[in-house]
Amino acid sequence: MNIKPKVTLVGAGPGDPELISLKGIKAIKAADVILYDALVDESLLDFASANCTKVYVGKRAEQLSTSQDQINQLLVDYALTHGHVVRLKGGDPFVFGRGGEELDFINQYDIETAVIPGISSSIGLTGLQKIPLTYRGISESFWVITGSTTEGKLSEDLYAAVKTNATVVVLMGFGKLTEIVALYKQHGKENLPIALIQNGSMPNEKIIIGTIDDILDETQEKRIGVPAIIVLGEVVSKHPNFKHIIEKYATV
Amino acid sequence: MNIKPKVTLVGAGPGDPELISLKGIKAIKAADVILYDALVDESLLDFASANCTKVYVGKRAEQLSTSQDQINQLLVDYALTHGHVVRLKGGDPFVFGRGGEELDFINQYDIETAVIPGISSSIGLTGLQKIPLTYRGISESFWVITGSTTEGKLSEDLYAAVKTNATVVVLMGFGKLTEIVALYKQHGKENLPIALIQNGSMPNEKIIIGTIDDILDETQEKRIGVPAIIVLGEVVSKHPNFKHIIEKYATV
Repeated sequence: MNIKPKVTLVGAGPGDPELISLKGIKAIKAADVILYDALVDESLLDFASANCTKVYVGKRAEQLSTSQDQINQLLVDYALTHGHVVRLKGGDPFVFGRGGEELDFINQYDIETAVIPGISSSIGLTGLQKIPLTYRGISESFWVITGSTTEGKLSEDLYAAVKTNATVVVLMGFGKLTEIVALYKQHGKENLPIALIQNGSMPNEKIIIGTIDDILDETQEKRIGVPAIIVLGEVVSKHPNFKHIIEKYATV
Repeated sequence: MNIKPKVTLVGAGPGDPELISLKGIKAIKAADVILYDALVDESLLDFASANCTKVYVGKRAEQLSTSQDQINQLLVDYALTHGHVVRLKGGDPFVFGRGGEELDFINQYDIETAVIPGISSSIGLTGLQKIPLTYRGISESFWVITGSTTEGKLSEDLYAAVKTNATVVVLMGFGKLTEIVALYKQHGKENLPIALIQNGSMPNEKIIIGTIDDILDETQEKRIGVPAIIVLGEVVSKHPNFKHIIEKYATV
């Protein structure tokens, strides 16, 4: 058999399997091997051919996830032995998805690569909740920042972001919520609207809308947890639930 | 006939019609009316039912585009008279797509709304070109900024962005390229990698990769024009063509 090694990074979107692109589905159908993450809905694997090898590389309950080095090596090994490998990732492969590192590793070998973008949770989950990331007269930009830096500290970018009018979306930052709220308070932004979206686009989605001042109480009360994205900015006030909060304040 | 008015904003993605989501296709199939923009590939309309009314609201060669006020009114009028209206937009409806304004207008009436996100050109076109927006040790965030503010000036956010390590993507900013380059030079970023992607994801796509110092010459030489996105940041050096530029400098 003549093996033509190839790796395609595919973004599966923010959760709901119907948010993958047509091009992503085509790649899944053409795949000889699929390596997929924890955040990918397994129903997408039904589009694969009967001969396709499906390899789970995310976290299991009792065991650690496959390390990035192992994944890199698996991508190369499967491409060389099986042909077309689809690396199926939650969201978009290049939005904190380590897709760049995977490409760099694969490029050391004579293996063709391609990328099929996905809807990032930063844009998709806010959109589904009708929170516009940009809005004329309110926000001319949005800034997507990781909550999980290599050193475990808040990203320097957040210290810059708090001083701007950009809509800020923090991914993988739920564990840093207390620190983020403290930072925004230091900058006098107690009244800034903030949203947390957990399990966005899925049947068990939860959202809370509040202000910097009350969001920690709300989080406890509504028992929101990971995985969740954090959205900070005046545009959050466009969410249908926000007016109730305004009314609550008006009666104080 | 019992009319159930509804408007769904749908993101068609960055150009290539295969980059729309499965959910977006489903909405098109279910639509009684589709209002679509210039940046939407018309082949997507083939998914619509035979009875669907298709209304073009983008720019024509000799005539101005339909105004936002007119579009808002059309959305409401068609929903009340025809039922389910799909508002099909290039990219994502909330990334400088004025989707928020449309929802605000529609919400004045008793009309159901929904949003189906799309792949924003900011993420999708860079991804297809294998430029990772984030990369461990290089960039912990990306910042998407409009090049076209209401006042016609550079966004204040760009003045803040130039001081950070965020990957910056400017949409609708090609006409401001000279100003943007000047701003980056003022901040000593002559060697920062920059990319321009014109007609991204389409058969006539063009890309140029350079540095702040040489990008204006490259733009003239390669005759890049609108519509184009601008990407600024060290991650641009991950593009396969960038090493040629490095080699060029090394021989000077």
